[in-house]
Amino acid sequence: MNTDLDSLLRERAIDALVVPMHEAMHPAFRWLTRGAKVTRGYAVKRPGAEPLLITYPMEREEAAATGLEVRLVTSLGGDVAGYADFFDTTLRELGARESVAFCGNVPIHLYLGIADALEQRGWRIHRGEDLVQLARKRKEGWEIDAIRSVGARTQEIVDDVRRALPTARTIGELKELVSLGIARRGMYEDHETILSIGRDAAIPHSRGNPRDPIREGVPIVLDIFPADKTSGYFFDLTRTFCLGRIPDELRRIHADVLEAFTLARDAMRPGTPAGSYHDLVCDFFEQKGYPTARSNPATTEGYVHGLGHGVGLEVHEKPSFSLLPPNRDLIEVGDVLTIEPGLYFPDRGIGVRIEDTFVVREEGVESLCPGGYGLDIGRSMKAIVKGSSLLC
Amino acid sequence: MNTDLDSLLRERAIDALVVPMHEAMHPAFRWLTRGAKVTRGYAVKRPGAEPLLITYPMEREEAAATGLEVRLVTSLGGDVAGYADFFDTTLRELGARESVAFCGNVPIHLYLGIADALEQRGWRIHRGEDLVQLARKRKEGWEIDAIRSVGARTQEIVDDVRRALPTARTIGELKELVSLGIARRGMYEDHETILSIGRDAAIPHSRGNPRDPIREGVPIVLDIFPADKTSGYFFDLTRTFCLGRIPDELRRIHADVLEAFTLARDAMRPGTPAGSYHDLVCDFFEQKGYPTARSNPATTEGYVHGLGHGVGLEVHEKPSFSLLPPNRDLIEVGDVLTIEPGLYFPDRGIGVRIEDTFVVREEGVESLCPGGYGLDIGRSMKAIVKGSSLLC
Repeated sequence: MNTDLDSLLRERAIDALVVPMHEAMHPAFRWLTRGAKVTRGYAVKRPGAEPLLITYPMEREEAAATGLEVRLVTSLGGDVAGYADFFDTTLRELGARESVAFCGNVPIHLYLGIADALEQRGWRIHRGEDLVQLARKRKEGWEIDAIRSVGARTQEIVDDVRRALPTARTIGELKELVSLGIARRGMYEDHETILSIGRDAAIPHSRGNPRDPIREGVPIVLDIFPADKTSGYFFDLTRTFCLGRIPDELRRIHADVLEAFTLARDAMRPGTPAGSYHDLVCDFFEQKGYPTARSNPATTEGYVHGLGHGVGLEVHEKPSFSLLPPNRDLIEVGDVLTIEPGLYFPDRGIGVRIEDTFVVREEGVESLCPGGYGLDIGRSMKAIVKGSSLLC
Repeated sequence: MNTDLDSLLRERAIDALVVPMHEAMHPAFRWLTRGAKVTRGYAVKRPGAEPLLITYPMEREEAAATGLEVRLVTSLGGDVAGYADFFDTTLRELGARESVAFCGNVPIHLYLGIADALEQRGWRIHRGEDLVQLARKRKEGWEIDAIRSVGARTQEIVDDVRRALPTARTIGELKELVSLGIARRGMYEDHETILSIGRDAAIPHSRGNPRDPIREGVPIVLDIFPADKTSGYFFDLTRTFCLGRIPDELRRIHADVLEAFTLARDAMRPGTPAGSYHDLVCDFFEQKGYPTARSNPATTEGYVHGLGHGVGLEVHEKPSFSLLPPNRDLIEVGDVLTIEPGLYFPDRGIGVRIEDTFVVREEGVESLCPGGYGLDIGRSMKAIVKGSSLLC
């Protein structure tokens, strides 16, 4: 939330926060400028003031469209000394005196030099914390609406895949269906959608092989996380399907993942450490006899990843569910996050993951997905086809 | 070129170059790993050696698919001290002794701290130069092929827009045609395509207003710069169209832009400063009586931007055509670049830009576009329709 950023700056006695934009859009700049369509510039935030947008005259129309105060300049830097001059002069003009923070994904070679040069001129450069990332954690209503809208469109694509599965021949066909479905709905894929079958489904971040044939009796994992092209907000949703007869082992593993998912979902409350829910799910899986990365970080079998993550202008953002220091993130009202337990057995070609995106409310978490967690495509298919025909 | 990176590291006595990847794909990481589909990790390049890819076990399949040497680790950092420990240990294990460079778009708050901590441990951190950006300037054959392939698909979309223009009602309809055309052809839009009419066309970086109606007798600028989803390579192409009767003033301005374009294209030779061609075009426009940003950096009328830019894994990369220090970029064999003069008169609602992407050869520049620079849609349309009907 915007007000969180004011508090963060004031608590640290930071006069100004600078979020540079060098061609490659990144979440800190998008958030602070509400998605300014400029390709070069800086957003500057001072405690208690609206962000200021500094850019070239050529970008003036898109800058003005943000509704922010805009300052047009004919040079935004040059070499390291030029940038340092620019920041030194501009920040003083804006009333900053000694302390500045830089945030965002920016060219590291340049900003290491700029930071040195500014320190030589007496500036104190804040380090080690991304204040915008911290402020972005709790979402405002309009952000939750934006995420919900991506969720509704994402669910349509999941339904399309479910419908197409019985007649699809390859993973590649389904991947194309997903990519076009994402583009048609005004969204984009940041990283390639995960659509994997059998052994690949058992390697959580395998994207899946387009040439793999669709087979019966093996798990198919669809992990889809598109973002809206305009708002930049992401959604994240995973379903595991199986065509034909479902092997008993897969059915049992899927039931255990769904139980872990339900357990974490029903337990989650604001004000508690995010890591505690990862612990809860590790306890559950270990009691069932599955290996976990908590007891063996190098394991490639069992529950090999974290429980979830925040979702917003990045597909992975705060809160973190990690048990490792320095993570102390709390679940807070307004957080948008995923719960996504999974179990993986590469040698047996079995991987199962179930994931919804949730918003945290006072009384617990509210899923932004309509549910439908079953492995079974055949029966869902018939139900859907029957439902549709009634409508025709 | 890869070999350029070896020379750059050796000349500077840098033991290792580290390109971090923190979720947000960026060109330095994509280039060094040839597009590894991992979401977290580091590419490490030592002089004379192939890059090494360090990532999590969960990413092992996609890491292995790069063909690079892969090192799997269960922690990639944590807090600033954790990252510094990790780099200190890992770089020493890899044979680096004292000097390291970091490149790419990475979270600045984190790497300012990491650089400090590594310096305290005796490391010398290279600053002020993006060595990967320098090495990426001259393209290899496979890169030129990748760019050419994006160009062919981009041209198809330009042809689609030309065909749709006479019956389109709004800029928004055409923008949708472009977006779907890009997605259908395995590409993506990094920043929104510029499709602007009248006054917006006279503001070079205005994206265009979807609600604007298509009108006759005014310029329509289509500046399209998609990238291939798999290779990540961009293309960049601009055409200016006019429906119906073309006003004399627009026709004259368009002819002058085309003359400037041809002038720069025919003059360009390897071994010469890129800025000299911007100078050449400024001379030409000033002789014709147009204002330029060279004589008045704040002008919003006339020739208000640079002549072009390199194209590769970024839509704007080396060489730079800027006349401002510190730019001293030369045109070199293997460079891929745009030539894109334009003239803009916002008060009169006139903007014209013509742009092709070229590859630099020993004997000059070769366009990767099939040409067709005319304003006139009507006649091109009839020719295209007639041509198609002959094929049916």
